Amino acid sequence: MADRETAAARLKAWDNILILSHRSPDGDTLGCAAALCRALIALGKSVRFACADAVPEKFGYLFRGVALGDFEPAHIVAVDVADKALLGTLEPFGEQADLAIDHHATHRPFAKEAWVEGTAAAACQMMAALIPALGVEITPEIADCLYTGLSTDTGCFRYANATPETFRTAAMLLEHGARAAEINRVMFDTKSRTAIALLKRVYSDMAFFHGGRCAVLCLTQQLIDETGATESDLDGVSAMVRQVEGVVLGLTIRERGENEYKISLRAVEPANAAEICKQFGGGGHKGAAGCTIHGTLADAQAQIVAACGAALEHIGEVDTRL
Amino acid sequence: MADRETAAARLKAWDNILILSHRSPDGDTLGCAAALCRALIALGKSVRFACADAVPEKFGYLFRGVALGDFEPAHIVAVDVADKALLGTLEPFGEQADLAIDHHATHRPFAKEAWVEGTAAAACQMMAALIPALGVEITPEIADCLYTGLSTDTGCFRYANATPETFRTAAMLLEHGARAAEINRVMFDTKSRTAIALLKRVYSDMAFFHGGRCAVLCLTQQLIDETGATESDLDGVSAMVRQVEGVVLGLTIRERGENEYKISLRAVEPANAAEICKQFGGGGHKGAAGCTIHGTLADAQAQIVAACGAALEHIGEVDTRL
Repeated sequence: MADRETAAARLKAWDNILILSHRSPDGDTLGCAAALCRALIALGKSVRFACADAVPEKFGYLFRGVALGDFEPAHIVAVDVADKALLGTLEPFGEQADLAIDHHATHRPFAKEAWVEGTAAAACQMMAALIPALGVEITPEIADCLYTGLSTDTGCFRYANATPETFRTAAMLLEHGARAAEINRVMFDTKSRTAIALLKRVYSDMAFFHGGRCAVLCLTQQLIDETGATESDLDGVSAMVRQVEGVVLGLTIRERGENEYKISLRAVEPANAAEICKQFGGGGHKGAAGCTIHGTLADAQAQIVAACGAALEHIGEVDTRL
Repeated sequence: MADRETAAARLKAWDNILILSHRSPDGDTLGCAAALCRALIALGKSVRFACADAVPEKFGYLFRGVALGDFEPAHIVAVDVADKALLGTLEPFGEQADLAIDHHATHRPFAKEAWVEGTAAAACQMMAALIPALGVEITPEIADCLYTGLSTDTGCFRYANATPETFRTAAMLLEHGARAAEINRVMFDTKSRTAIALLKRVYSDMAFFHGGRCAVLCLTQQLIDETGATESDLDGVSAMVRQVEGVVLGLTIRERGENEYKISLRAVEPANAAEICKQFGGGGHKGAAGCTIHGTLADAQAQIVAACGAALEHIGEVDTRL
C-alpha cells in the first residue's frame, strides 16, 4: 500500500501520464482528475485524460483551458476508482494502471500501487494534500476543481463523512480562490426541467400509511416515461420519501417488468429496513435495504406496507428528535 | 463599539443575566443564546432566556438540560439581534440591554455596548471564539448549539457568507463533539407535511415564459390556505423558482389583498431584478428585488412577465455556466 509521499515521488518521476476517472463521472472523480492534470502540467509534464462516459456539461469548467496531450501513455493513474470494473469500457487501461488514488474503504486493488485513505471524505481531499507535496501551488483553478469534489461527495458538507480535515481543506481552498458559492449554486441549487417534472409527481403521488409513519412512492414505467427522468434523477427519490417529517419507513416501489416490482426501503432507527426486506428474500442494511416482489402493483404495495405496519407495531413510538 | 475582549470581560463580571433572541427565532439566534447560557452556567452564573416567539420544537435540543433561572435581571444581552424592533414584544428589554452580540453589517445600535462583526457568517461563529475567551470549555452540547447556527445561517456552508474562518470553526466544533450529520438531517433533510403540500403545488403550478428563461409562481391566498403553508414555508419559494435550469428571471406573485399583488423577482447576472421592479415603483438589489402591482392576478402577471421579456430581449443570451 502506497502513501502520499510514494504517490508524489512516482508522479514527479513520470511523464506522458494518462489519468482515468470512473464511468458515470461525478464531481469528485472529475475534480480530482482535473486538479491532477493541472498540477502535472504545471510541472511541465504531458497528460491525457480518459473516462468511459462523457463529462457532463455542468462540470465543463474543471478542464477549461487545460492543454491535454494525445500520446501513447507511459504511465496510468486512476483517481476515485474503487474497482477496475467502474472504469467501464476503459477497464483494460485499469489492468495496466501504475497508481490508484482512492478514498473508498472498499477499494479492490487493481493498479501496481494504490494510495487509499478510507476515511477521506473525497479523493479531492487527498489530492489537496498531494499537490503541495508535488511542489505545485494551488491556483484558483485547481482550488475550484478540488472544492467541487469535496462539496459534491459530502452533500455540501452535510453528511457524516465530512470530518474536521474536510472542513480545514475547504477553508484552505477558499483561501486559494475557490468559487465556492458559485460551484454550490450549480451543483445543489439548479434543477433540470426533468427533475422538476419528477419532483411534481413525487410530491403529488406520495402516499402515507400507518399514521404517517410509512410513506410510499410508486415509480411506474409510465411515470418515468412521462417525466423523462433519468437514472440519476431517480437516485435521490428514495431519500426524499424518507425525508418527510414523522416518516420512519420510506418506500419506493419501482416497476421492473411485468408483475415485477423492486422495493427500496429506508428506515429511521430503531426500525430495521433489512429485517423487513428479508421477509421477501431481499437484504441490505438497517438504514437502507431492498427486495423484489412479484404480482400486481396493488399486491406488491399491500404486502410490503403490511410488513412495514407489523414492524412499526413491534417497535412502538419512535422519537426522531435530536 | 466593543470587541470580543470587552464582551468577555463584561460577561465575566456580571451575574443574573437575561439573554434575548430575536422574534421568529432561527438556528443562529437560538444556538448562540443556548451556547451562551451553557457557558455562563459553567461559570456559576444565573441566566434567563427570553424570546418573543416560542422555540420551534426541532430546536428543543439546544436548551435541553439547561437550568434557566427566574429572577429580576441585573444585565441584559441580545444575540443575533440586528435591530431592537426584531425583539418583537420584548423590545422594551432591548432598550435596557447592556450588550448586543451580532453579525449583521446592518446592525442598528440599541444596547449600551455592541460587539458586531459584519463579516462573520453567524452569531455562532463569534460565540465560538467568545466562549474560550470566557475560559469555558466547549462541551459537546455547546458544540451542537454553535454548529447549529453556523450550519443554518450558511445553508449548510453553501452560500458566499461561509468564509475560511467559518469552515475552521466547523472543524473545531466537530472535534469538540458536535453531532453535525444528525443536526443537518433535521435542519436540511426533513420536510413537514405542510412543506410537502406546498412543494407539490410549487412544482405543479410553476409556469414558464420566454423560452423557459422566465419562471412564474402565483401564491394565491387560496393556495396558501389549501396547503396550510406558514410564512417560513413560503420563505424558500422565491429561491426555488430561480433554481430551475435555464431560468434567468424567477418570479413569485403573492396575493396581498383584493387586486394587490406583491412581486418577488430573483435574477441571474447580467439580468437586473432591481431595474425591472423599478418600473413598477419597487426596488431591491441586482439579484433580488420586489414591487407591488394593483389589478387582477392575470393583469399583474401579464405586466411583470412582459417587463421581464423586454429585459431578456435587451440582454440577449445568458451563459450561466461556471
